[in-house]
Amino acid sequence: MKATPARLRTDSACFEADFQARLHWSADQDAAIEQRVADILADVRKRGDAAVLDYTARFDNLQVPTLQALELTQAELKAAFDAIPSAQREALQAAAARVRSYHEAQKKACGESWSYRDEDGSLLGQKVTPLDRVGIYVPGGKAAYPSSVLMNAIPAHVAGVPEIIMVVPTPRGEKNLLVLAAAYVAGVTRAFTIGGAQAVAALAYGTQTVPKVDKITGPGNAYVASAKKHVFGTVGIDMIAGPSEILVLADGTTPPDWVAMDLFSQAEHDELAQSILLCPDAAYIDAVQAAIDRLLPTMPRAEIIAKSLTGRGALIHTRSMEEACAISNRIAPEHLEVSSHEPHRWEPLLRHAGAIFLGAYTSESLGDYCAGPNHVLPTSGTARFSSPLGVYDFQKRSSIIEVSAQGAQKLGPIAATLAYGEGLQAHAQAAEMRLKDR
Amino acid sequence: MKATPARLRTDSACFEADFQARLHWSADQDAAIEQRVADILADVRKRGDAAVLDYTARFDNLQVPTLQALELTQAELKAAFDAIPSAQREALQAAAARVRSYHEAQKKACGESWSYRDEDGSLLGQKVTPLDRVGIYVPGGKAAYPSSVLMNAIPAHVAGVPEIIMVVPTPRGEKNLLVLAAAYVAGVTRAFTIGGAQAVAALAYGTQTVPKVDKITGPGNAYVASAKKHVFGTVGIDMIAGPSEILVLADGTTPPDWVAMDLFSQAEHDELAQSILLCPDAAYIDAVQAAIDRLLPTMPRAEIIAKSLTGRGALIHTRSMEEACAISNRIAPEHLEVSSHEPHRWEPLLRHAGAIFLGAYTSESLGDYCAGPNHVLPTSGTARFSSPLGVYDFQKRSSIIEVSAQGAQKLGPIAATLAYGEGLQAHAQAAEMRLKDR
Repeated sequence: MKATPARLRTDSACFEADFQARLHWSADQDAAIEQRVADILADVRKRGDAAVLDYTARFDNLQVPTLQALELTQAELKAAFDAIPSAQREALQAAAARVRSYHEAQKKACGESWSYRDEDGSLLGQKVTPLDRVGIYVPGGKAAYPSSVLMNAIPAHVAGVPEIIMVVPTPRGEKNLLVLAAAYVAGVTRAFTIGGAQAVAALAYGTQTVPKVDKITGPGNAYVASAKKHVFGTVGIDMIAGPSEILVLADGTTPPDWVAMDLFSQAEHDELAQSILLCPDAAYIDAVQAAIDRLLPTMPRAEIIAKSLTGRGALIHTRSMEEACAISNRIAPEHLEVSSHEPHRWEPLLRHAGAIFLGAYTSESLGDYCAGPNHVLPTSGTARFSSPLGVYDFQKRSSIIEVSAQGAQKLGPIAATLAYGEGLQAHAQAAEMRLKDR
Repeated sequence: MKATPARLRTDSACFEADFQARLHWSADQDAAIEQRVADILADVRKRGDAAVLDYTARFDNLQVPTLQALELTQAELKAAFDAIPSAQREALQAAAARVRSYHEAQKKACGESWSYRDEDGSLLGQKVTPLDRVGIYVPGGKAAYPSSVLMNAIPAHVAGVPEIIMVVPTPRGEKNLLVLAAAYVAGVTRAFTIGGAQAVAALAYGTQTVPKVDKITGPGNAYVASAKKHVFGTVGIDMIAGPSEILVLADGTTPPDWVAMDLFSQAEHDELAQSILLCPDAAYIDAVQAAIDRLLPTMPRAEIIAKSLTGRGALIHTRSMEEACAISNRIAPEHLEVSSHEPHRWEPLLRHAGAIFLGAYTSESLGDYCAGPNHVLPTSGTARFSSPLGVYDFQKRSSIIEVSAQGAQKLGPIAATLAYGEGLQAHAQAAEMRLKDR
């Protein structure tokens, strides 16, 4: 088995075309999936629990008499935590502690209420409050990630959300103990073993058993993504996730094995995952390819890695690190490693990325599990306009305005002039009524 | 003509049913609109300028040979500013200055990069950067609001967005001078007189003439709302706006005329707009109804006001101000006036609202135009999970992680344990390779 990422050179005449072809990934909706999802949503909205039970039996091969039977009790979550090896217990707790402390810092930096008074004594600001109840979707089956439980539930907790409802499909009733243990560590309020569009519908509309939430976060397959997009507006959603991506900017000073393994760590997720290396040093790129060749056979998930790297990977020889940074900005990758001995020289040039990993020791995998920052990140170039999941996703803001009697005298004529200009006379008169010398 | 909002009492046996019936507003999608919008989007994506021209001719009765002919030059914007009465010029500038200074305070409070180093010297934080290019949709035709130009463009400017592209339909070519002047004052980069789903498509995908943007903000009709939801993911969007709402919590100390006019100022927007009064004092409610009866005939938009108040308005007699606050939280209104002589007593009880207006002098209309806070606010109960438009909508965050060599020794085993637990061996080995004594 061979993993042969495309080898591109920015000084080649066909670079632009090759680059575009490699990058292309279409998030275009599949009309058939859209329709099936719309039907499932409408059915769950109408029939509630009964519909969720039907779809769970059909899609997850899991037949139970009532939806209550699909709720995981707190005792079950704790039992799972007690049952896993102590090394896993400690790792979960250590990771949770670091993720919690990072998100607490985040809340302090950008999630607190603020206000000021202007020269007329009018009060202006924003009050920041947590959402009342959120739903977190945790994928089950072939890619069940306990770390995602921590990454979704902990920021919600830090935000102050009182109720966190987790859903996780358990095909054929097979539960992942580590996922349940993570739910225990993260302090999930209630958990249901349901998944797919039916779980999204249950959370968005509420059923007899599943409480309606205000926002749904967490990744899922194409059905889940389509369902989240559908219910957006009825509830809040975080983002629509595409395949995972890593981009490594290398100046040639990191051991090539480390970089090869970092490329693997993205590729092993999924055949559609994308791993790209940008480097101005051709000999170093050769060394990374050699490391890929040597290390691939040792990997249990070699087949997925080979397909991903060969199908979507690229090793790009750039003219300079500056050019590599510019190309990285065009890609706006989910994960961006600056594998350089002077990462702070390049960081200011990097404008679009979900997370930026600086220096050779900062492997993406440390960030995925326990460095502290969130691993739920914008994919497919959406880092151009969206942000990592954070405390701010579980808060909302209300503007606070208290115009003083004096302020009303100053603002009234301005508002009235503009309101008359817009043909909104009641707006104008509401302002004018507050004038004292009219 | 009479405006007779429903009169409800919370101590009545049928309150719950009456309240639900009054509140009900369905944002359910119209399948026919959805399909037409999907077709328009696909067509613009494929044919670019030509498609936009066709739809503009068809829907806006505006026939021009090229899309360039629909671009407003900076000179035209300036000419509009010069042409309007000086009172309007000054009002626009005064409003813009206040909106700018509020959003600058907002950026300082919650829109700056932050970071810290942990005990191992690892750097953790977030870098906040502006979007590169945004599109703002400004409705034209029957409800052209220059204030919306300021409210969308100024936060984008304050965020540091270098390119702000405005679209505004001009049915039959009729331009609203005040909208153009507002675009001049707000510093819009480019402006096109296009609208509807075709304008959203042009901004989302880009055409030969209209540049592709990263995010689209601003309200619009059902076609615009549907188009925005469709392109969400390709670009960012702000929110899907429903009919406007005001809720007044009154303790009976504000002149009843003021409250009546504030209810009018929401009702005059649209027959579907909703104005609600919550008050524990029945005599005061009578006084407000009397003010409504007396003031209505003086209003130029009396017909819309009467339809809105009669169809969707309500005057609700509560047992107490505390109960009024609780009901307000259930509604999660867009605009919430606390018309009380002790507004700070009630404010802490209010958890869900787009904007909270404190005290008798703070009419919603002052906030709409010039108090400073944004007037683009979550509607239809979405204040439960979303926030006013703000500087944060025009920024995005990148996590910053620099794990020190020492930190990698501590984090590596944690990450590896969890990665092996998830069956992701490359993740585990990427962490283990960085361990010094392996």
